[in-house]
Amino acid sequence: MFDFTGTYTDQYQLAMGQVYFQKKQQDNKATFDYFFRKLPFEGGYAVFAGLETILEVLKDFRFSEKDIDFLKNQGFGLDYLEYLKDFRFTGDIYSVPEGEIVFPTEPIVRIEANIIEAQIIETFLLNILNFQTLIATKASRMMLQAKGRKLIDFGLRRAQGPGGYYASRAAVIGGFEATSNTRAGRDFDIPVSGTMAHSFIQSYDDELTAFRDFAEIHPHNSVLLVDTYNTLKSGIPNAIIVGKEMEARGQKLTGIRLDSGDLAYLARVSRKMLDDAGLEYVKIAVSNQLDEHLIKSLFDQEAPIDIFGVGTSLVTGNPDAALDGVYKLAFFDGKPRIKLSETIQKVTLPHKKQVYRIFDEEGNFSGADVITLVDETEISTMHHPFDPLKFLSLEGRTKEPMLKKIMENGKRIFEERSLEEISTYAKERLQKLAPEYKRFFNPHIYKVGISETLRNERDKILQEHKMN
Amino acid sequence: MFDFTGTYTDQYQLAMGQVYFQKKQQDNKATFDYFFRKLPFEGGYAVFAGLETILEVLKDFRFSEKDIDFLKNQGFGLDYLEYLKDFRFTGDIYSVPEGEIVFPTEPIVRIEANIIEAQIIETFLLNILNFQTLIATKASRMMLQAKGRKLIDFGLRRAQGPGGYYASRAAVIGGFEATSNTRAGRDFDIPVSGTMAHSFIQSYDDELTAFRDFAEIHPHNSVLLVDTYNTLKSGIPNAIIVGKEMEARGQKLTGIRLDSGDLAYLARVSRKMLDDAGLEYVKIAVSNQLDEHLIKSLFDQEAPIDIFGVGTSLVTGNPDAALDGVYKLAFFDGKPRIKLSETIQKVTLPHKKQVYRIFDEEGNFSGADVITLVDETEISTMHHPFDPLKFLSLEGRTKEPMLKKIMENGKRIFEERSLEEISTYAKERLQKLAPEYKRFFNPHIYKVGISETLRNERDKILQEHKMN
Repeated sequence: MFDFTGTYTDQYQLAMGQVYFQKKQQDNKATFDYFFRKLPFEGGYAVFAGLETILEVLKDFRFSEKDIDFLKNQGFGLDYLEYLKDFRFTGDIYSVPEGEIVFPTEPIVRIEANIIEAQIIETFLLNILNFQTLIATKASRMMLQAKGRKLIDFGLRRAQGPGGYYASRAAVIGGFEATSNTRAGRDFDIPVSGTMAHSFIQSYDDELTAFRDFAEIHPHNSVLLVDTYNTLKSGIPNAIIVGKEMEARGQKLTGIRLDSGDLAYLARVSRKMLDDAGLEYVKIAVSNQLDEHLIKSLFDQEAPIDIFGVGTSLVTGNPDAALDGVYKLAFFDGKPRIKLSETIQKVTLPHKKQVYRIFDEEGNFSGADVITLVDETEISTMHHPFDPLKFLSLEGRTKEPMLKKIMENGKRIFEERSLEEISTYAKERLQKLAPEYKRFFNPHIYKVGISETLRNERDKILQEHKMN
Repeated sequence: MFDFTGTYTDQYQLAMGQVYFQKKQQDNKATFDYFFRKLPFEGGYAVFAGLETILEVLKDFRFSEKDIDFLKNQGFGLDYLEYLKDFRFTGDIYSVPEGEIVFPTEPIVRIEANIIEAQIIETFLLNILNFQTLIATKASRMMLQAKGRKLIDFGLRRAQGPGGYYASRAAVIGGFEATSNTRAGRDFDIPVSGTMAHSFIQSYDDELTAFRDFAEIHPHNSVLLVDTYNTLKSGIPNAIIVGKEMEARGQKLTGIRLDSGDLAYLARVSRKMLDDAGLEYVKIAVSNQLDEHLIKSLFDQEAPIDIFGVGTSLVTGNPDAALDGVYKLAFFDGKPRIKLSETIQKVTLPHKKQVYRIFDEEGNFSGADVITLVDETEISTMHHPFDPLKFLSLEGRTKEPMLKKIMENGKRIFEERSLEEISTYAKERLQKLAPEYKRFFNPHIYKVGISETLRNERDKILQEHKMN
């Protein structure tokens, strides 16, 4: 993995830190919320991902000697640098579980730490959570369209540098089953998958010999790439020859892969050719600039596809490229804090907060989350954050607190979860979300409201600021 | 940096490698070309970036013990694993210099190595070059619109995980002057920049005290963020108070930063307020979802802006997210190789190749590059790759070979270049490109053609394949 050290941050965190340090504020506790404002991909939900990575990074997050030397040359004060030499994160973290289905404006992670620590970790926390949540959400959208067919991540070559490493991880949380990325497979225990490129076929004088050699060396995992010269006239006929030769040896050809041309048409004709040859068990894999729209379109055309290999649009989250997650101060030095804005939607919610999810009688999500003060016990109504006319009674509804304490005084207190467990959790939670929120086009808007107490608190503070 | 080891690859490279190994092809030399097919951002050129990173990675690229153990569990053969244990890149690399202005279809990097080595390095080579070239190109587009004003990269928090590290590097190649990313600053010797976030202002009971404390601790580098409460009624008046206090102490306020609202309007009014207070030297920095379109728009409105802080769209290359660079086999086992396709544009160019840039009499780019066989000396005409009616005489024109040998037998033979040198080179080369190719909308199309000999060679091989 990347060696995340103290300088993996924005310079202003360190500049502000020096002010706090010299003004003796370094033990003053701050509360920050991580949340995002807009769902990516015009979708109806997001899949929260990246938490285990954050905890992993926090475990060893220190300023290296090289970091300190660099900062010295940048002109930071020597006493402050001494402080940074001993830096480690000693705060508390509350978070929704990784894999949770989440929505805009609600706090997903809450950090309570001294102000310098909380600031310095902001950058990598945003960097990791924004990206992995984006990719897990993209993957989940593809998973819904693939309707149970296998999805494999092929993206590393088009990924944004080593971002691809975490993209492969996040893809699994969203529902991908395997990756071509050997390194991600090694570190995150993801099944790895990969057979041949066009160059392999090209390196032979003829396609048939290339297929034969591959099948000989990899008899248990041969997916033959059939479009190097001509899919239907050469690739499939040669794959059938090799498939029959394997049968004669008591082996089975795993599949064929289509990587160009009209995938729906080629899959249909290839399927028929394979079936007519008695190779019904040979799977059809497709790749080539796929995204959730193309996967949907292939199913709309009833293309007989078993495996989708998805690259660029998965690992870069194209066309959105970034989740707009932010990290906002909500409480400091014993007082609630607010950021004003000319647009009311960008006014932040003050105070230490909790989020409750409201369930229906069958135990499914009812389509509403409510943000409250952290110590509220009676939450009888939920209010639209800005529209005073919109509110909902919550009397008698089942509510589940979303933010759990996962780190205390810099020590993890929430047990480690494997990628598989996280992925399973994400699937279970997505099951509880009604179909109208998972709709491909124009999904229903999941409501996120605030408690009456929080609304009153916010409005009181807003009022005070206007008076000044 | 990320620890790039042997498993930072696609699994199919290793699967194909095993076939080559068992078929005793491991010493057979292959030539691969790196090129891309489409310019990003509807622009007229791309800025090649990532080469030094590739060379840095290649220096130590090995399979670690952990890699080998993982591959053993994946079922790879023991003799092949022994081979991988000793793996190092021992081939030759030819490349255009980093920072060069490049165009679609022309080979930018040519790899000559034994087939297994050439395949295994493919994935990280694409992963690094595609991304850095994308970002350097995006940065260059912004640089052209910023018309000499300072551009600062603010993107790490919205970058695609550790991809942000290399994004900051590539941004400098494209023309950015500084970064907020402390780590990139440390490792790539980029000026780092950063003063304060909204949270800093919010952590104080009043904005004025926050500004005063900051200016006291950082008297040489104070850019005050003025939009936390109200830019014109509170932020700018308080910045003026602090600016005048600094003057009284013989110091100078560096600048103010606008991060929300109508930036053109706020910059204009803020400038006037600052000027009226005698603070003409205080710079105006702006940020908030900027891209080259917004930068252009701000100049169209004559907004008095000195510094642009650009985040998401820079470091993710939004809206394109990926350059479509590929790596194609052109020569193997003493023979030229081709990949056919139903679309003629996707048919690859066989043989070991060179690229020549044609210059005009003033030493500027004439708007044409020609791809030739590597050993051609007489290149009298340049042909459109597919349209037989289109060709250009090159008699008497100055031609410069683009691909230079930079690595021989796995050893670097091209001297290391600093990021600053690369950035300067990119600017010099961009100067030689005529304005119509740099136009913001609908730029002129730079011609990339092929020599007559290469065309004839390709057509001969195409013909042979059709006969089969």
